[in-house]
Amino acid sequence: MRLDDKLSLRAKAMKCSEIRELLKLVANPDIISFAGGMPDPRLFPSKMIADITSEVLEKEPERALQYGPTEGDSQLRKKLAEWDGVDIDNILITTASQQGLDLVSKILIDPGDTIIVGYPTYLGGLQAFNCYDPEFIGVPLDDNGMRVDILEDKLVKLSRDKKLPKFIYIVPDFQNPKGVTMPPDRRKRVLELAIKYDLLILSDTPYRPLRYSGEPCPNFFHLEGGMERVITLFTFSKILCPGFRLGYIIGPAAIINKLVIAKQGTDLCTPSFNQAIVREIIKKNKLKEHIKTLVSAYREKRDRMLNGLEKYMPKIEGLQWTIPDGGLFLWVTLPEKMDANIMFNKAVKNKIAYVVGSAFYYDGGCRNTMRLNFSFPTLEEIDEGMKRLGMVVGEEAKNLMIKV
Amino acid sequence: MRLDDKLSLRAKAMKCSEIRELLKLVANPDIISFAGGMPDPRLFPSKMIADITSEVLEKEPERALQYGPTEGDSQLRKKLAEWDGVDIDNILITTASQQGLDLVSKILIDPGDTIIVGYPTYLGGLQAFNCYDPEFIGVPLDDNGMRVDILEDKLVKLSRDKKLPKFIYIVPDFQNPKGVTMPPDRRKRVLELAIKYDLLILSDTPYRPLRYSGEPCPNFFHLEGGMERVITLFTFSKILCPGFRLGYIIGPAAIINKLVIAKQGTDLCTPSFNQAIVREIIKKNKLKEHIKTLVSAYREKRDRMLNGLEKYMPKIEGLQWTIPDGGLFLWVTLPEKMDANIMFNKAVKNKIAYVVGSAFYYDGGCRNTMRLNFSFPTLEEIDEGMKRLGMVVGEEAKNLMIKV
Repeated sequence: MRLDDKLSLRAKAMKCSEIRELLKLVANPDIISFAGGMPDPRLFPSKMIADITSEVLEKEPERALQYGPTEGDSQLRKKLAEWDGVDIDNILITTASQQGLDLVSKILIDPGDTIIVGYPTYLGGLQAFNCYDPEFIGVPLDDNGMRVDILEDKLVKLSRDKKLPKFIYIVPDFQNPKGVTMPPDRRKRVLELAIKYDLLILSDTPYRPLRYSGEPCPNFFHLEGGMERVITLFTFSKILCPGFRLGYIIGPAAIINKLVIAKQGTDLCTPSFNQAIVREIIKKNKLKEHIKTLVSAYREKRDRMLNGLEKYMPKIEGLQWTIPDGGLFLWVTLPEKMDANIMFNKAVKNKIAYVVGSAFYYDGGCRNTMRLNFSFPTLEEIDEGMKRLGMVVGEEAKNLMIKV
Repeated sequence: MRLDDKLSLRAKAMKCSEIRELLKLVANPDIISFAGGMPDPRLFPSKMIADITSEVLEKEPERALQYGPTEGDSQLRKKLAEWDGVDIDNILITTASQQGLDLVSKILIDPGDTIIVGYPTYLGGLQAFNCYDPEFIGVPLDDNGMRVDILEDKLVKLSRDKKLPKFIYIVPDFQNPKGVTMPPDRRKRVLELAIKYDLLILSDTPYRPLRYSGEPCPNFFHLEGGMERVITLFTFSKILCPGFRLGYIIGPAAIINKLVIAKQGTDLCTPSFNQAIVREIIKKNKLKEHIKTLVSAYREKRDRMLNGLEKYMPKIEGLQWTIPDGGLFLWVTLPEKMDANIMFNKAVKNKIAYVVGSAFYYDGGCRNTMRLNFSFPTLEEIDEGMKRLGMVVGEEAKNLMIKV
């Protein structure tokens, strides 16, 4: 059988992610990895989870182990609705926020539709969208997130060409991969543009509760006119644990309705077991407590990585990094001559790893960039890893005759 | 905002499932429901699950609560590979088998592709496929499953029209909704046709281990030439609990490979937590033990429902039912004049519910049929429910002047 004769066009276009291939090289335990985007497993509240799980299995086994409604556990939805000041009809529980990206794509994207994405943006977003064959329009970011002036220029042109996008995909808080945050004023401007051109906004907020400095910014849906055109993705992966695969979507009721039908065909419902556990964790006020622990631990790691960059990176023109107010990542831009993809093998030889920045550009652009994760490694690993990375960058610069 | 301007064509075509709407009527606790397809929650092994969950959270919290590989927990895959006599590369863990249906559709179906389905077949299969806009070709079933003579006729014609299907979707064991099983000879014939016309087979086997009478039939992939063209879906929903949303796919390695890439964009990975628990349950040999309990309890329920049909159904020409060797369902065919959809409201008034058979036909055909579930109700409910249903059918027949 020739498999290629059987595959759908979308499957033929699917490629094994470059990151996945690179990360295979990192399996060696001697390598300190700033790649990946995993929370610190040493901080998982496993005792608390064990206690609450026992309680759930004792008190409500018939409910926790059975099929549940596609919309999600009604008590959990109610709790989350209160939390975020919305109606229960605005909430759909998802099998983590990656499923949110898939479902939203499923109900919105026809082949050839344009959508606006950060340039760069979350790789998993690009992967989810890609399956539905859209045309990407990239908008670059500065230290305040997506450049609203460039966004406007693109919308003017797209409107003229009658190719207005289905939605604008934004990671507004501690963006993946750049670590930058969009301030309130710019959020308002983006929403005004969405209203002017009658567009949806898809706001992806996995890191939002993990803020280490600065003031919280409003969610798009809390801004005037936001509730009717903003779809927001949340997840418990970074604030509790990824192993539950639990998240939720807040959006206009009519859109939630369509997402529910799409979800029925996709996985019927999110695990009732995992939903019951998280519902009880929230009810007992254990989640907010745990987030405090995470914020203080990750703040220290972020600071340690920033110190390491100052201390170990060679002083060369064009080398810079972002200073994130929260989240899991920061972003390093190398001088234009340098290629983080080529340098990657040298890094691995020196037992240090990162994600090549080009992976986050839908067209593979900007090869002089890399994403560093500070949530997973220990403080000691951050120190030692920054030393190794500084050395690798310094040597590569020397090889390329860049003045150090 | 006009939502319709934003939706994808597939979302515009999505309709709230008729079953879902009907089932809302059944929420009243006075109603005895033979609708739905849920396992008996009183049989969930919650104590065993609680013990093993505690152990997992104590022994391997960092692994059970973290992201896992998209392919699934490697130890679980290894165990399942041994179990089914295949290679680990032939196995992908899924977020239950509904996700298997979605992923397979994603990598195989282009709009307008034909696929062959049972007439009737599993509603969730139709829903999953529908999102990818195929053309359905229905093949009727007799007491031995899909009619292979009609299948052959259709393939001859489709081949002539150069519209050969991407795959044949079959539920070979205790089919949903009819409860019928395809014997070994017919399986061989179906596979021979698949080989002759170079087609894939999608074999969906959620009920397979729940056999109450007769001899087990071979899986398609164990037949000669099966391994390279059969994709088989398994789930733990009916043999352990649906609340974990855990299943797996066995298929050719090249197809598994594409499914892995599709799954990455869909939900990154299946919950590591749920996988670790089920892996330990299997390792400790607790699952096969539990299946024995289920088989003996469900056999009794099946027999009770069959007795009820004999006892309470009016003796009218054209009224018949299937006698399933396993699974959760049996299928009642009413005289052609009768309409189970119209009768449904009367049934609900009499506090008894079923699923209208027409829901399982991609074109809504055969309204004189209904599916009855015997796994969920208690033995007493089955007795009382059959009495009520017999009365409703008898009265309806009388109203339609059918000789009783």
